[in-house]
Amino acid sequence: MTYENRYDVSTWPVGDPLEDIGEVLNSIIADVHQRQSASTPPYGGKPGAVIYIPPGDYRLRTQVLIDISFLRIEGSGHGFTSSSIRFNVPEDQWEGLHELWPGGSRILVDIPRERGDDTAGAAFRVERSGDPRISSVEFVDFCLDGLHFQEDESDLPAENTYSNGKTGILVASPNDSFRISGMGFVYLENALTIYKADALSVQDNFIAECGSCIELKGWGQASKINDNFIGAGFKGESIYAENHGGLLIAGNNVFPRGSSSVHLHGVTRSSVTGNRLHSFYPGMLRLSGNSSENLIATNHFLRDLEPWTPFHGINNGLDDDYGLINIDGSDNSVVTNHLSLNIDGRDVTPSGSAPVVIRLRNGVGNFVSNNHVVATHVDSSQSDSCFEGQVDSLLSKGPSGGLEVVTVSIEASSERNTVLDSGRETEILADRSVNALRITPEVGG
Amino acid sequence: MTYENRYDVSTWPVGDPLEDIGEVLNSIIADVHQRQSASTPPYGGKPGAVIYIPPGDYRLRTQVLIDISFLRIEGSGHGFTSSSIRFNVPEDQWEGLHELWPGGSRILVDIPRERGDDTAGAAFRVERSGDPRISSVEFVDFCLDGLHFQEDESDLPAENTYSNGKTGILVASPNDSFRISGMGFVYLENALTIYKADALSVQDNFIAECGSCIELKGWGQASKINDNFIGAGFKGESIYAENHGGLLIAGNNVFPRGSSSVHLHGVTRSSVTGNRLHSFYPGMLRLSGNSSENLIATNHFLRDLEPWTPFHGINNGLDDDYGLINIDGSDNSVVTNHLSLNIDGRDVTPSGSAPVVIRLRNGVGNFVSNNHVVATHVDSSQSDSCFEGQVDSLLSKGPSGGLEVVTVSIEASSERNTVLDSGRETEILADRSVNALRITPEVGG
Amino acid sequence: MTYENRYDVSTWPVGDPLEDIGEVLNSIIADVHQRQSASTPPYGGKPGAVIYIPPGDYRLRTQVLIDISFLRIEGSGHGFTSSSIRFNVPEDQWEGLHELWPGGSRILVDIPRERGDDTAGAAFRVERSGDPRISSVEFVDFCLDGLHFQEDESDLPAENTYSNGKTGILVASPNDSFRISGMGFVYLENALTIYKADALSVQDNFIAECGSCIELKGWGQASKINDNFIGAGFKGESIYAENHGGLLIAGNNVFPRGSSSVHLHGVTRSSVTGNRLHSFYPGMLRLSGNSSENLIATNHFLRDLEPWTPFHGINNGLDDDYGLINIDGSDNSVVTNHLSLNIDGRDVTPSGSAPVVIRLRNGVGNFVSNNHVVATHVDSSQSDSCFEGQVDSLLSKGPSGGLEVVTVSIEASSERNTVLDSGRETEILADRSVNALRITPEVGG
Repeated sequence: MTYENRYDVSTWPVGDPLEDIGEVLNSIIADVHQRQSASTPPYGGKPGAVIYIPPGDYRLRTQVLIDISFLRIEGSGHGFTSSSIRFNVPEDQWEGLHELWPGGSRILVDIPRERGDDTAGAAFRVERSGDPRISSVEFVDFCLDGLHFQEDESDLPAENTYSNGKTGILVASPNDSFRISGMGFVYLENALTIYKADALSVQDNFIAECGSCIELKGWGQASKINDNFIGAGFKGESIYAENHGGLLIAGNNVFPRGSSSVHLHGVTRSSVTGNRLHSFYPGMLRLSGNSSENLIATNHFLRDLEPWTPFHGINNGLDDDYGLINIDGSDNSVVTNHLSLNIDGRDVTPSGSAPVVIRLRNGVGNFVSNNHVVATHVDSSQSDSCFEGQVDSLLSKGPSGGLEVVTVSIEASSERNTVLDSGRETEILADRSVNALRITPEVGG
Repeated sequence: MTYENRYDVSTWPVGDPLEDIGEVLNSIIADVHQRQSASTPPYGGKPGAVIYIPPGDYRLRTQVLIDISFLRIEGSGHGFTSSSIRFNVPEDQWEGLHELWPGGSRILVDIPRERGDDTAGAAFRVERSGDPRISSVEFVDFCLDGLHFQEDESDLPAENTYSNGKTGILVASPNDSFRISGMGFVYLENALTIYKADALSVQDNFIAECGSCIELKGWGQASKINDNFIGAGFKGESIYAENHGGLLIAGNNVFPRGSSSVHLHGVTRSSVTGNRLHSFYPGMLRLSGNSSENLIATNHFLRDLEPWTPFHGINNGLDDDYGLINIDGSDNSVVTNHLSLNIDGRDVTPSGSAPVVIRLRNGVGNFVSNNHVVATHVDSSQSDSCFEGQVDSLLSKGPSGGLEVVTVSIEASSERNTVLDSGRETEILADRSVNALRITPEVGG
Repeated sequence: MTYENRYDVSTWPVGDPLEDIGEVLNSIIADVHQRQSASTPPYGGKPGAVIYIPPGDYRLRTQVLIDISFLRIEGSGHGFTSSSIRFNVPEDQWEGLHELWPGGSRILVDIPRERGDDTAGAAFRVERSGDPRISSVEFVDFCLDGLHFQEDESDLPAENTYSNGKTGILVASPNDSFRISGMGFVYLENALTIYKADALSVQDNFIAECGSCIELKGWGQASKINDNFIGAGFKGESIYAENHGGLLIAGNNVFPRGSSSVHLHGVTRSSVTGNRLHSFYPGMLRLSGNSSENLIATNHFLRDLEPWTPFHGINNGLDDDYGLINIDGSDNSVVTNHLSLNIDGRDVTPSGSAPVVIRLRNGVGNFVSNNHVVATHVDSSQSDSCFEGQVDSLLSKGPSGGLEVVTVSIEASSERNTVLDSGRETEILADRSVNALRITPEVGG
């Protein structure tokens, strides 16, 4: 049993991986099953297998179903390149381009799918009933490319909609100790959707130009999302988790667009620390559904202007008084974050209002301490139209000046909060009879 | 010499890896030695080798002795699954389980051993005298499974004792630039014990259901333990280091039980930052033996109730006034941590006392600043009995309410400390004539 | 096209990798080019390739030119061992040493080179004109060894100069989504020099005993340098970046020497968080060229005495009033860092001055909050002469006592800064009419 647990899609006798790697992978998984039931190894072990995908272009026409623990599927390269940039170059200029598509160990997700049917649209589906939970499935170092977006209810050109009904990996059953590492995801409506995760690791991946990137659904605990590059489309979420406890989101570099950078719903006792978050809209970090006792610390937030012409005028529908951080929940710690806001003051909505940076919407007992807000007015009419969605704000700045903001706004439905050293007297909106405040010292103050 | 430096245990002519992978690995190491002494390569290099372990179940009956630098032993999967859950399911229900054991590239540690003889009980022993220190040995992506615990002096069922005299990897000699990555450790009394480490990396491993997990002994410097899942047994340590300097413990998700989550003894100028720590007992983070000038920042601490019936009544013997954090040492920084305490106020020991969160036991000049404590009383009689030791506290909460705590307690033997914004007037026990305090502002204060 | 995208230098028919791995790698890259132009695969994909380097000693006499996306070059071990220690052992004692050189998958960089011609001296050069930018090239798990330093204008023995005109990897063209991971770099004048990076990941490498370690030049955005061991020579930079935005430098263990540990020039909206930085000189962290809106948080700084005889008397030429942190820029956040200064008070320069810890040199609006400074006088004449440059300060301490320092010094050219809880009344030099200060509370204060 030992010596047969290593597979290579390019040498497996069933199917043609170039035409349908899904058929090949399912055939290999069936072989692992067959051999596991035939054998009675010492201790009854079922060690699983590793399946290797060499660099190459593999079309996937059949969904892969994984229902076996300890399976690793591994390639030799996440192969990310920007499809979005190229799709926004006129096609008559493609001739001279060095390459048109992502690469590495690349799976071209080309399955029939219906919008709204997440299960059918998944390239990889992990699902198993019974006990124990499926464990230690690993996806390592290959690329899942959804190829094209398609026209939807918006007026956008097809390739800019972020809609195509495709999911890269869908884990539908309770699972333990999964590992997603070194992967590339591009042009999928949903890159990675995992239900009911325990001790999940999503580390060091490149997940960009997808409708949504990482969605942890149902419930879960004791997982981590760290050291990834992540950037969702304008209507999706870069990192979303619901009903999780003990989740650690750390060290990620999350770029635009993303309706939110991090959205936690009903999440408790979790951490968002040391991330770099960049967005073009309000609502970068949202704690909703009474998310409580979380630690939001030492993150760098930057909201600035959409620099790229194809997405001018697109946003996530939130007003600027929503807050870069918006919290519905109790007893959270929001400490030592740096928050840079870099927008055109004339475009602020609702008109005449001041943009809000940290907004406590509901709950009690939040601790907001030593956050540093830097707000700058930028003349958007002077801003360059750059070639890339995630382009650095360095390049996009027009003439600028100071911008008045509310650094912390506490609604009447949130009270008994403590706000320390996170803004000047005029920058904090809060009922001081029900919240404890200490204003950041000012010159001569 | 080049072309022969890649080995596969499944194709090596000496021994049977299924029956004793230890014999096979020792034979391969002897071969590397023999070839190194036979050759006189340019520059006298001795590049080492890589040994591959495909997925499979390999019994280890002979200890592996590594005395050669630049050796990498590599598998294709850490293969973690919970043995603890299954051992606590009645055996007549095992029939329907998908699998009974951990998997991946799995070594079944089955060596004869004596309790208390750590050296003999190690599956892998790294030891070499002379100069230079042994360097760049790597353990990557395989599983070390101790199989069973055994009866000991406690009254616990054998499989719940965390005792079996087995160690996964023991590094006994001074070493440099070692790397432990992607490994799984399960059901070992000591997972990983490393003496005299310099520039050691323990990263992205899954070390759980072991008596103790990571122990850095003797002395050491400039190492890091990051991005791991870790959870020791009730009497062991999840992360322990002694006489280290420049150690970086960051981004780990440390779950219960563990007598401590992190214990540093005689450790200086080191960091514990951005970790998520979860425990059922006091003493989650201990600085002992005059540990000084360390930085403890942006960690999320959660202490709550033991939810799992088999371990009800088990604890680490410490009273609740010991502190979640207990410090014997000077000039440490304890800043911007979130600490949630979620226990039954009626069970607090000593009876009638208030639980302590941060306790300064001995030393001078510690800086305790902007820590946020959230304390909740939970009715433990209403708490669910859940299936899993590391189960999320979300699931285990009974009716709750406020709980009075001491957020910072400074003993008479510790002075000249600074405590800022880490508790209310009534929550801090300290002699203000020898310590500097600033109370967290209160509503109306 | 698929099945041929995996190469092994040890089986490629052209050239001899032991004699010149550069010739072999260039021949393989030419083969990839040739096959890519010959084929018209579905979707026009050009998936790249993986080239494997087994453990071994490979001389590189010809520069490798990479002009193809999605190429991964991968070995089986970073193979670091200290060459510096061994070169400073008398040669007649080398006989008994277990090994003399680094190992693993080791490339001996032995190209003809001219000092000052960085391009010619690079072992690997990545360069391509036209569109799109070259993407997803990966360097993984092998060793680049420059072998020897050579005499230069200093009086140092050749092997201690850190000069040899050799660069490990030079990326000269705009690039996207590159990945440098698990690599070892040793005895190169410049380890890694990357121009114009977007979404670059430099993670989990061992880069030490090089003149400079990581240099990000030209401009760049949205990249990360995380979880590395890094230590440059006395005149080089451990981590340098210029004109970058959204750079995340996190979780690195940066040891001496290094003229600086981290130097950012014209860098904006970037993070330096959770690193452990150790140096023997002032100027550990420098923000120059109007670097603004950066977050410097939860880092552990240690400056102490040079313990190793061969480098006694060597430094970076800066006076002690330069600051461990020196900032030319605006709106930066310097929060919750621990800074230990451990020097001989009698050697402070300029004579009679107090060492400065955080110095704001130029700019406005910086936020310096809750930093903890620990300063100790050490009698350097009692300090041990240890064997290793990066040896722990634990071993090097002579008799010690308190040391008076300036924790924060603000020059007249920097104003409107806020300094909170980062030093006592007498430790802060600032014009309070133009800066806002809150002194750390003192006992009895």
